[in-house]
Amino acid sequence: MSKIVTAAMVVIGDEILSGRTKDRNIGHLADMMTALGIDLKEVRIVPDDQAAIVEAVNALRARNTYVFTTGGIGPTHDDITADAIAAAFGVPCDYDEEAYRLLDEHYAARGIPFTDARKRMARMPKGAEHIRNPISVAPGFRIANVYVMAGVPAIFQAMLDEVAPTLKKGAKLLSVAVPSPFPEGTIGGPLAEIQRTHPETIIGSYPKYQDGSFWTEIVIRSRSEEALKAAKAAVEAMLENLLNRR
Amino acid sequence: MSKIVTAAMVVIGDEILSGRTKDRNIGHLADMMTALGIDLKEVRIVPDDQAAIVEAVNALRARNTYVFTTGGIGPTHDDITADAIAAAFGVPCDYDEEAYRLLDEHYAARGIPFTDARKRMARMPKGAEHIRNPISVAPGFRIANVYVMAGVPAIFQAMLDEVAPTLKKGAKLLSVAVPSPFPEGTIGGPLAEIQRTHPETIIGSYPKYQDGSFWTEIVIRSRSEEALKAAKAAVEAMLENLLNRR
Repeated sequence: MSKIVTAAMVVIGDEILSGRTKDRNIGHLADMMTALGIDLKEVRIVPDDQAAIVEAVNALRARNTYVFTTGGIGPTHDDITADAIAAAFGVPCDYDEEAYRLLDEHYAARGIPFTDARKRMARMPKGAEHIRNPISVAPGFRIANVYVMAGVPAIFQAMLDEVAPTLKKGAKLLSVAVPSPFPEGTIGGPLAEIQRTHPETIIGSYPKYQDGSFWTEIVIRSRSEEALKAAKAAVEAMLENLLNRR
Repeated sequence: MSKIVTAAMVVIGDEILSGRTKDRNIGHLADMMTALGIDLKEVRIVPDDQAAIVEAVNALRARNTYVFTTGGIGPTHDDITADAIAAAFGVPCDYDEEAYRLLDEHYAARGIPFTDARKRMARMPKGAEHIRNPISVAPGFRIANVYVMAGVPAIFQAMLDEVAPTLKKGAKLLSVAVPSPFPEGTIGGPLAEIQRTHPETIIGSYPKYQDGSFWTEIVIRSRSEEALKAAKAAVEAMLENLLNRR
């Protein structure tokens, strides 16, 4: 059997839940995981609240290869992610010597005061390793299988680019999309039958509504190229058959 | 004290987790909840998997006034939300007489066959009430405090418009945004102090990264207009003070 690697994501921030900020990181992580052959199994969006963060991270790290978090690692009072992750692991959260030095040098070189607020960004759970931040220096961190990254999309993406080459890759889930001019209600029966007879594939059907009528995108996924081809042929034959009966 | 009404959301669908479809419903629900004075406390995105749906719905319905789900109520084999919600409540899932009649009439009037796949859309947990679907007829449904709606954004939005007037409204969380030309590291200390001395407000700070430099959007929220004004004045005085020291 193919090697299965799974991931979950925790998006941290009141601003996403209030609608003020529209998340742009979930879709990016999902695309990246798919490219790496890693199954993204669940995403949770939680507020800036320690108990909520701890609950989500502990539930998800126990049952996934990796957990990725975004948000809450800046310098202000509502940035509580480092403390929450330390609490989730039951370890102290303190200034990291190397992070403190990096930030001190960075701000000194620019004549920017290294305020207490900025010093907060050097805090991380004991035993955490840095995730390099090529944009604004303040590092993310990894502790065990949990990767803690920034919420600002440009920084999140840069941090994920640092992390990606270090991750175990899964057997890639291949996928092919077959557009169906028929709505789901027409193809649902035969499609269920194709799913039953092609158990090595996952067949999804996604209704599209455009200009008052429905069409369907059928997506077939499999870790076996052969199984994918066979299911695709079956779906195409089914659509051909329906077209001929029109 | 103000009346607190809370909500959670469960987004159901492999296609969101694979990145193939980018969710457009979370932000819409978040905006709508904020407009209604309802606190959106958590969002979970789960796959088309009954155990995952049941776990998320049961965890969230126990601790929120409302739970809203999107996705998985169409006619195909991967649309398993009705069964999963029935399982979460421990009730049977069967054809709803009224939904069946509505769909039968709808398709008959259009000369479209009422296939077994389409009939699946009439299935719902015993005891559920319809949520009207003004676009494509197949209803969503409510059981207890759980509202089950379509994933197609146009239909989800129409269903939510049907539901919104029936929801308890919370005391509205007022909010005001104050743009800060300073990055978070500069304002973090004094802002934490303002948060401490204005406990009736929630002060968030959202770093913005543009053209290589940082500015910050400070957002103050409160259910008391007076408290909001006082905190806003304190933030503005703090920024004024920093500008004068520049």
